[in-house]
Amino acid sequence: MFFQVIDILGTIAFAISGVLVAMNKRMDPFGVLIIAFVTAVGGGTLRDTLIGQTPVSWMINMTYVYVILGATLFAILFKNYINYLRTSLFLFDTIGIGLYTVVGIEKGLTIGLHPIICIALGTMTACFGGVIRDILCNEIPVIFRKEIYATACILGGLTYFLLSEFLTDSNFVFVIAGVVVIVIRLLAVKLKISLPSLYKD
Amino acid sequence: MFFQVIDILGTIAFAISGVLVAMNKRMDPFGVLIIAFVTAVGGGTLRDTLIGQTPVSWMINMTYVYVILGATLFAILFKNYINYLRTSLFLFDTIGIGLYTVVGIEKGLTIGLHPIICIALGTMTACFGGVIRDILCNEIPVIFRKEIYATACILGGLTYFLLSEFLTDSNFVFVIAGVVVIVIRLLAVKLKISLPSLYKD
Amino acid sequence: MFFQVIDILGTIAFAISGVLVAMNKRMDPFGVLIIAFVTAVGGGTLRDTLIGQTPVSWMINMTYVYVILGATLFAILFKNYINYLRTSLFLFDTIGIGLYTVVGIEKGLTIGLHPIICIALGTMTACFGGVIRDILCNEIPVIFRKEIYATACILGGLTYFLLSEFLTDSNFVFVIAGVVVIVIRLLAVKLKISLPSLYKD
Repeated sequence: MFFQVIDILGTIAFAISGVLVAMNKRMDPFGVLIIAFVTAVGGGTLRDTLIGQTPVSWMINMTYVYVILGATLFAILFKNYINYLRTSLFLFDTIGIGLYTVVGIEKGLTIGLHPIICIALGTMTACFGGVIRDILCNEIPVIFRKEIYATACILGGLTYFLLSEFLTDSNFVFVIAGVVVIVIRLLAVKLKISLPSLYKD
Repeated sequence: MFFQVIDILGTIAFAISGVLVAMNKRMDPFGVLIIAFVTAVGGGTLRDTLIGQTPVSWMINMTYVYVILGATLFAILFKNYINYLRTSLFLFDTIGIGLYTVVGIEKGLTIGLHPIICIALGTMTACFGGVIRDILCNEIPVIFRKEIYATACILGGLTYFLLSEFLTDSNFVFVIAGVVVIVIRLLAVKLKISLPSLYKD
Repeated sequence: MFFQVIDILGTIAFAISGVLVAMNKRMDPFGVLIIAFVTAVGGGTLRDTLIGQTPVSWMINMTYVYVILGATLFAILFKNYINYLRTSLFLFDTIGIGLYTVVGIEKGLTIGLHPIICIALGTMTACFGGVIRDILCNEIPVIFRKEIYATACILGGLTYFLLSEFLTDSNFVFVIAGVVVIVIRLLAVKLKISLPSLYKD
């Protein structure tokens, strides 16, 4: 129940981030809806496709469809007021990637994949919706260029497997790993830390 | 038989639209062929991958491969005369998306998916070949920015499920829904109707 | 054993080519790693997804992950010296696409696909890592515009099936087809041959 609420808040934040980018590109309502959708479910869809869990999850659980349709409509109607929600949306997004990272890791564990692959799946779940969004909008994905975002997911994933060595309470491990993602992301934004570009002179 | 002819005409129209965009980008023959191919089968390929129907259909039914190879060769050889076919190609393309929308919907129904998901699958089948074409050509997908295209597919899909409530003759529903897609698309182009951009000031 | 060494050398060459493109785009370390990864395994991943062999191969065989991580770290640390390795990397890359083409063809044969589809799968395995790399870096894929690259794979694939008609020693056919890819690519680069652009006036 608690995780479902986070899942929905994260989906809302992802969808609205898609709406904002798409409107900036002067897309029409259909384009805006597709970008919202892809941003919200793209990471999980890529994960499910690569591990062979098809039909992918948003085709089976209608909650995502309704939440994304609602969030998109809301963001289009109140586009001039979205700015006031910027902090809330940032928080939802951040809590969302914490959850999605751990969900992705556990999907990989369920089918017996190696921890490194599980961390890759977690990071993919949390980050690749934004990557596909940026590609569809003809931009180099923002998470490849700046911001501690995927890095937070990777560190959270490492925490998950480190803790699993010592703790048996899997719910506790789940929560702590997610919190690590969230805290690192919050600190990085607060302290304006980003990874350096690797430009080759 | 009748639907097969439409399928082939649609495939030809899609492939040639790919050839034209690729030549405009000064691609070499291999690039042109790939873009033709992706435009023609990309939507169905994405659909099949996401619902887990693999190997995807063009790998099993060789008709598509031969039709696309033929259409690409034709378009390259007669590139200076393609303009005279513009109206025919537009008609083939339009009839094609009518057919592909309904085919996609019925694929979703076969595996028991929700009507909204089926409409999404139909729209994906009809429209995402063009989306992948535009991404490979480094453009923002044209259907996200203007033209009633996906919207026609969505309205045709809604018609399909509305009619299914009242009619039992599934062939009739199939045809009417396809015709709705075609008529909306034709009217929109004829009357120069497009969706407004949602630019945020 | 011999093929495994080639596979690893090819993976290294592909990963480093990804690192170089990504650094040129001023990406951060995470972006560089993802581009290296995608360049190295993208072709095989697309192939496995489209034919339904999931989880895709790099999720099951950890060798690729370690090799790519190592090659990426190496290329980042010694970025100012990579130029001295240019010839070796070009050779590894070329031998790599020879191997990957034939591996892709044989994957298709194993599941009973048509020779044309098998050649498409071989070409996809060898070339589409670079295509996805270029899309993620917001460029039109280089192999669509110039260089005999995919063409070498296609000709190698045709050789494979021509030889299979006459020879029964499948290892021999495997090697000759791969060598044809390599020789055509080397000759094309040596003699500066490329396909003409099909620009439509």
